[in-house]
Amino acid sequence: MRLESNTCQAMVLAATQKAVSLGAFVSVAVVDSGGNLVAFLRMDGAEIAGPTLAVDKAYTAVANKISTQELSVLAAPGGPLFGLHSNGGGRFVIFGGGIPIFDKSGLVLGAIGVSGGAVDEDVACAEAGLTEWMRSSQGSV
Amino acid sequence: MRLESNTCQAMVLAATQKAVSLGAFVSVAVVDSGGNLVAFLRMDGAEIAGPTLAVDKAYTAVANKISTQELSVLAAPGGPLFGLHSNGGGRFVIFGGGIPIFDKSGLVLGAIGVSGGAVDEDVACAEAGLTEWMRSSQGSV
Amino acid sequence: MRLESNTCQAMVLAATQKAVSLGAFVSVAVVDSGGNLVAFLRMDGAEIAGPTLAVDKAYTAVANKISTQELSVLAAPGGPLFGLHSNGGGRFVIFGGGIPIFDKSGLVLGAIGVSGGAVDEDVACAEAGLTEWMRSSQGSV
Amino acid sequence: MRLESNTCQAMVLAATQKAVSLGAFVSVAVVDSGGNLVAFLRMDGAEIAGPTLAVDKAYTAVANKISTQELSVLAAPGGPLFGLHSNGGGRFVIFGGGIPIFDKSGLVLGAIGVSGGAVDEDVACAEAGLTEWMRSSQGSV
Repeated sequence: MRLESNTCQAMVLAATQKAVSLGAFVSVAVVDSGGNLVAFLRMDGAEIAGPTLAVDKAYTAVANKISTQELSVLAAPGGPLFGLHSNGGGRFVIFGGGIPIFDKSGLVLGAIGVSGGAVDEDVACAEAGLTEWMRSSQGSV
Repeated sequence: MRLESNTCQAMVLAATQKAVSLGAFVSVAVVDSGGNLVAFLRMDGAEIAGPTLAVDKAYTAVANKISTQELSVLAAPGGPLFGLHSNGGGRFVIFGGGIPIFDKSGLVLGAIGVSGGAVDEDVACAEAGLTEWMRSSQGSV
Repeated sequence: MRLESNTCQAMVLAATQKAVSLGAFVSVAVVDSGGNLVAFLRMDGAEIAGPTLAVDKAYTAVANKISTQELSVLAAPGGPLFGLHSNGGGRFVIFGGGIPIFDKSGLVLGAIGVSGGAVDEDVACAEAGLTEWMRSSQGSV
Repeated sequence: MRLESNTCQAMVLAATQKAVSLGAFVSVAVVDSGGNLVAFLRMDGAEIAGPTLAVDKAYTAVANKISTQELSVLAAPGGPLFGLHSNGGGRFVIFGGGIPIFDKSGLVLGAIGVSGGAVDEDVACAEAGLTEWMRSSQGSV
């Protein structure tokens, strides 16, 4: 099972629709299991950090098989992975907005990353993208 | 006049539809006048160099206000801009597939970049994206 | 169909055995379809450029779905892809030693990259690794 | 005394066998006294952060002649080396899984780095690799 281009596109749109409902302006990225970009969209008015932060949140989630929200605890000062944010060529983002996508067997298929709103908004948008993936794949995470 | 997110999205889809008609598998990127990514899509089966090459072709086109096809002559050995490919942090691409978008007054609005097919195919897909921009903006280049 | 870790390991060993038979000292890398490293070995006496050149030859081959040997023509001065060697963050190698691996349907599964010998030796070692892949997968390229 | 390629290969395999016994999925890297990669293997199912984190853990251990586990204390907020994680081009990893290898005279010969499991698992796998080195070298650390 692979993330298809059409699905990634639909995920991006679902996440931006969520942002509209929240009054947020975000960038959304979906990467495949290799961490390579498949689909990206920056909403009108969203900050230009989006192309790096949204993509790298998605990359971080797939590379470490964990949400960046969880890393915000694990990689914080005092956490077991403190320092991670400086590694990986500076591409590891350790605050919320990146969520990995798993198939039923636990294999990572890719990830979605959202940036531009408050962290809570980014997370909510990423979850909306994930919901779209579950719908279109009729799968379950 | 600015490139809107919806328009960029439509340009990306128009370029990929052109690729389908050519039997090519491409990545397509649209950047704004600041050279920052707005929309991106990598077709199923398109190579993973796309996320760097399509984005950087678009970046090159807007950054230098010229198509990368024209740069393939100007920046070739013997050309007046030879060496350009090593500048800009390695982001300047000097083969076809990146085309800048101008408004009527000559102001650069952004650019489209396509990578994954043969150079001629990439150029044709980028032109298809540009045609979509002209249609949706009812503007003229 | 995916490249398995055991197969990658066997490919690396096959390539280094070829190097021994040629009197060459090489590094060998195998990457998966996402361009991410699976297996690597640097022979005693092989130069320390190997960890970057062998890995990046393999990366280049999978990212562009073409051997780096072929790129040595296409990306040379006068070729349609001249300038490519400066793109992709400097990771695109355009001399022989990187060969992509395809399944029967033409899907890229990964690539092998060899560096350390003369270009002809590197290519021969990479081909030996590829032969091992075909043997162990009982597939055909 | 130098780390030989065959020994590094054996260390990598010993570390991955330990991972299998723990139910973990890891990447393992061995670097020489110059910090340059000798052997690497990413197990099927291990995350793609491994190629950067395992290699950089090993690099960190040999570069600083100390385990990354020890650095997790020394380089933590409040520790005497706080800030280290941002140095070295982002290649210094300050959580467990990288262990340097010394000869009897205290000369550093190289290091092993493991990434992909929980920190404790990574450390256990690295130690298994080290045990293999001691066995095959009949040396003592």
